This record gives sequence, structure tokens and C-alpha cells, in this order.
Amino acid sequence: MSVKRAVFFISDRTAITAETFGHSLLIQFDDVDFQKITLPFIDSLWKAQDALEQINDAREHTGSRPIIFSTIVNSQVRKLILSCEATVVDLFDAFIGPLEEELRVQPTLGGSSHPSAGEELDVRINAVNFALTNDDGITTKNYDKADVVLVGVSRTGKTPTCLYLGLQYGVYAANYPLTEEDLLIEYRKIPGVLQPYRNKLYGLTINPDRLQKIRAARRPTGRYSSLEQCQKEISLAEFLYVSKNIPYLNITTMSIEEIAATVMHKSKLQRRIF
Amino acid sequence: MSVKRAVFFISDRTAITAETFGHSLLIQFDDVDFQKITLPFIDSLWKAQDALEQINDAREHTGSRPIIFSTIVNSQVRKLILSCEATVVDLFDAFIGPLEEELRVQPTLGGSSHPSAGEELDVRINAVNFALTNDDGITTKNYDKADVVLVGVSRTGKTPTCLYLGLQYGVYAANYPLTEEDLLIEYRKIPGVLQPYRNKLYGLTINPDRLQKIRAARRPTGRYSSLEQCQKEISLAEFLYVSKNIPYLNITTMSIEEIAATVMHKSKLQRRIF
Repeated sequence: MSVKRAVFFISDRTAITAETFGHSLLIQFDDVDFQKITLPFIDSLWKAQDALEQINDAREHTGSRPIIFSTIVNSQVRKLILSCEATVVDLFDAFIGPLEEELRVQPTLGGSSHPSAGEELDVRINAVNFALTNDDGITTKNYDKADVVLVGVSRTGKTPTCLYLGLQYGVYAANYPLTEEDLLIEYRKIPGVLQPYRNKLYGLTINPDRLQKIRAARRPTGRYSSLEQCQKEISLAEFLYVSKNIPYLNITTMSIEEIAATVMHKSKLQRRIF
Repeated sequence: MSVKRAVFFISDRTAITAETFGHSLLIQFDDVDFQKITLPFIDSLWKAQDALEQINDAREHTGSRPIIFSTIVNSQVRKLILSCEATVVDLFDAFIGPLEEELRVQPTLGGSSHPSAGEELDVRINAVNFALTNDDGITTKNYDKADVVLVGVSRTGKTPTCLYLGLQYGVYAANYPLTEEDLLIEYRKIPGVLQPYRNKLYGLTINPDRLQKIRAARRPTGRYSSLEQCQKEISLAEFLYVSKNIPYLNITTMSIEEIAATVMHKSKLQRRIF
């Protein structure tokens, strides 16, 4: 039997952290039918008042106490949200006290946690533009500026991973497609244009049957999406990775954020933004 | 005087939530020099053991107790991490108990919080491909499939916002550049190709002096990056938004994630993925 519960993700910023964290807790409770509402940018008392009304409406509507995931920094706004009849998971409140004690430093408790959104915008936009400009081997002339160069056969998630690395971490990521020609003509060799950057290379691979399905969705017939061709390209690419000591990753069961986090970690890349 | 502290972000998945949340707490403590280390995918006891060694090394190296932000779900792995001599901010442990009590449902506590990474990969990749295919007005023929169509003059953050909407939320976002020609020829009118989708439109705008700087970084001379031209285009665009009731946003001091979260909220769009 499924129970209905309203869930609010509330923040004085984007609420993305509250949503992501709240979601990872809620999926532990399969049997409950959660109705999720996100309320970002609750950064004033009158907006908090408005949020309270929505929370109260939801309680009446569902007949049970809503659950609130909050990352609000401002103590007055937080207090108002805490006053409602709901279960409040206050991410900020629970930890700022213990940290203060441990660090023996007064927190500044600035309302905004983004003093330099302008600069951050630049970092992100520059990193995204880098990914777009250096996508799919269009050009290799900026690889000296790249933090990492992803390589892999067609449809192994290179483009979205590069974009995610740019948007989430501010990292400069280029990508270069390994074609059958590349792999056969220069058998067992790293393609010439990539050789100066071999320390920046990171390989992606995938199971052939999964690749076949992804390619067939794009181009249903022909050699490109045949299982045989997928197997051939993948085995050539993996052979290159292994023989040339290029670190690589099988992405078959991974989400883009998992691929990106793995590349960051294994290549020891540093975030430029949070 | 600055104190040195090692900070670890530990997770059995990407650690992105631990990083983002931890960062928002740590910036409240200006005077401390934090050395940040991310350890994603700590999903087995032997990996946890390895993490413990790194934590102990850091404690000896800095001479103070490290701070750990953990989102580990598996209880055995969590217990091992909790056993180290450090201040552990355990995001999961602090809240799963109270939620269990409130919901009166046993949590499943599955190790992996991503049972369907394959499907999620598809959603993300499809949404990113949609953003790339429908970027900058290249084509308008897929706008019927779009969840939202961003409009704005050149260099107002349309492309990275669309990509972020795709990657973070799985939302289909297209964008269309408002050119001076569009704005003058069809003065006070929504450009013809956009008219069938007017309920999907969301306008971006920016302060002219900021736009001038962004454009000048790209093309230092000429009309495109003159302050006068920026002022003219922006006032025409804003006039269109106001007179045609297109919701819009001034992005001058916002980060991409703030722009995306605002568009999601104001356009009442639903996430497809978490």
C-alpha cells in the first residue's frame, strides 16, 4: 500500500544540493509515494512565509506531515521554516555547530554563499566553450590548454562527459574520436596528433552489445550499428589503451556524473569551481 | 593567522553532493586553509581501508584532525570510516534514522542508489544532444519537443544554460538568438518561427556594460562589442519580453546553475533525473 507524502526541497540558492541529497535518502524508502516540490531562492522572510503556506496546503491536501530538505543559510529565514508542522531535514543547522566547535573559528554566516558568481560564470562558460570548440576532434590545436583529452570510439559518451566536466567542475576537457581508420592504419600506435598529449589522454569504452543498441537508435541499418563492427572497434580501442598504458573506463552501467567523477579522480584533476 | 586542515569528501558514488554541500559549509569559515581531497566510489571495505590510511596520513601531515564529509550508504563501510580519528560529517547517518521514524517504513539501504544508471545515461545523453542540435537557432523544427526555448541576444548565457538543463535535470532546452534584425524588422513582434512556441519561451538579459566586456573578450573591436550596440540590442530584447509577456531574467550576477534553477522553477519544469 502506498502512502502519499509531500516533499519540499528548500534553499536560499538553487536547491540542487537539497534535491540531490534528499533524493538519495528518499530512494531508500520504496513504498512511499513522494510528491516533490522544489522551492529555490528562498532568501527573504516574505518568500519564506510564502513557502510556509505551500507547506501547510500540502499537509492538508495529503493528510500527513510534509518532509522538508533545507540548505538555508540565513538564520532568521531558517527559523521561520523550522517553525512549520513538518519534518525538517536541516542540512545546514545540523553541521555548522559541530564544525564551529572543531575548528574553533566563528562562522561568518554570510547570507550568500556565492560572493563571486560573475567570476564563476566566466569559468563555467569558458570551460563549456572549450568543450564545444574541441569536441569530436574538430580541432586539436588547443590541446595544450586541455586538462584532459577523452578518447574513444563513436558513441561512448565523450561529448556529454566533456560538457559535464566543464559545467560541474570548470575543467577543460577535449575529446577525440578513435575511428577504425585511426586504429587500423596506426595499429598499436597512439594517433600522431595525440602523441604530444599522451599524458592527458583518458579512454572510454563500453560493452559491444550496449554500443550496438545506442548506435542502432541513431542509425538503424548499416555497418556502423552492426554488432560485428562494434566489437571490432572496441577491441582495437581497448588494445590501444592497454598496450600504451592509457587509463580507461568501461562506462556501460555508469551515469554521466559517475564517468566525470571517475575521470576527475583517476586523472587527479582539480575542480575550478564548486 | 591561517590554520591548515585536511578535508575529505567521501562517497560510495560520485561524491558530488558531499563536495557541494561540504563546500557551502566550509566557506563559512574564512580563516582556515582547507586542503580538499575527494575520494569517490568508496564502495568496499578494502577501499575504505585505503581511505583511512590517507586520512591518517593527512592528520600526521597537518597536525590536526581532518574533517570528513561522507554520503556513504553501506553501513559496514560507513562504520569503518566513522572509526577514524577525524570529525565526520555523516550526511546519511544523521537523517536516515529520523526519516525512518517519521515515515514508519523500513529503509531498503541498498548499497547502490542508482539502480538504473543505464536509463539515466540515455535521458542525459538525449537531453544534451537535444541542446546541441537545437543550439543558437540552428534549427527550429524540433521545438515541439522542447520543454523550454531560451531567447536572448548574443552572449547572454543561453548555450551553457541549455546544456546544464540537459545534464543536471534531463530537460529538453533549445535556444534561439535574438538578432538586431529580428528585433528591428519585426519590431514589438515575436519572431515568426517562435510564435507557435510562445508558451515555451524564456528570455535572458544582462546589464549592457557586462555584455560589452564579455563580447570584447571574444571580438575586441567593431560594432558587435561596442557599448552602444549592446545597449541597443538589450533594450530592444527587454522591450519584447515586457510587451509580449515573456518571462525573463537578468543574469548579470548569476551562476549558470542559478540561471538554470530559476528557469526550472519559473517555468514549472519537472526534473527527469536526479
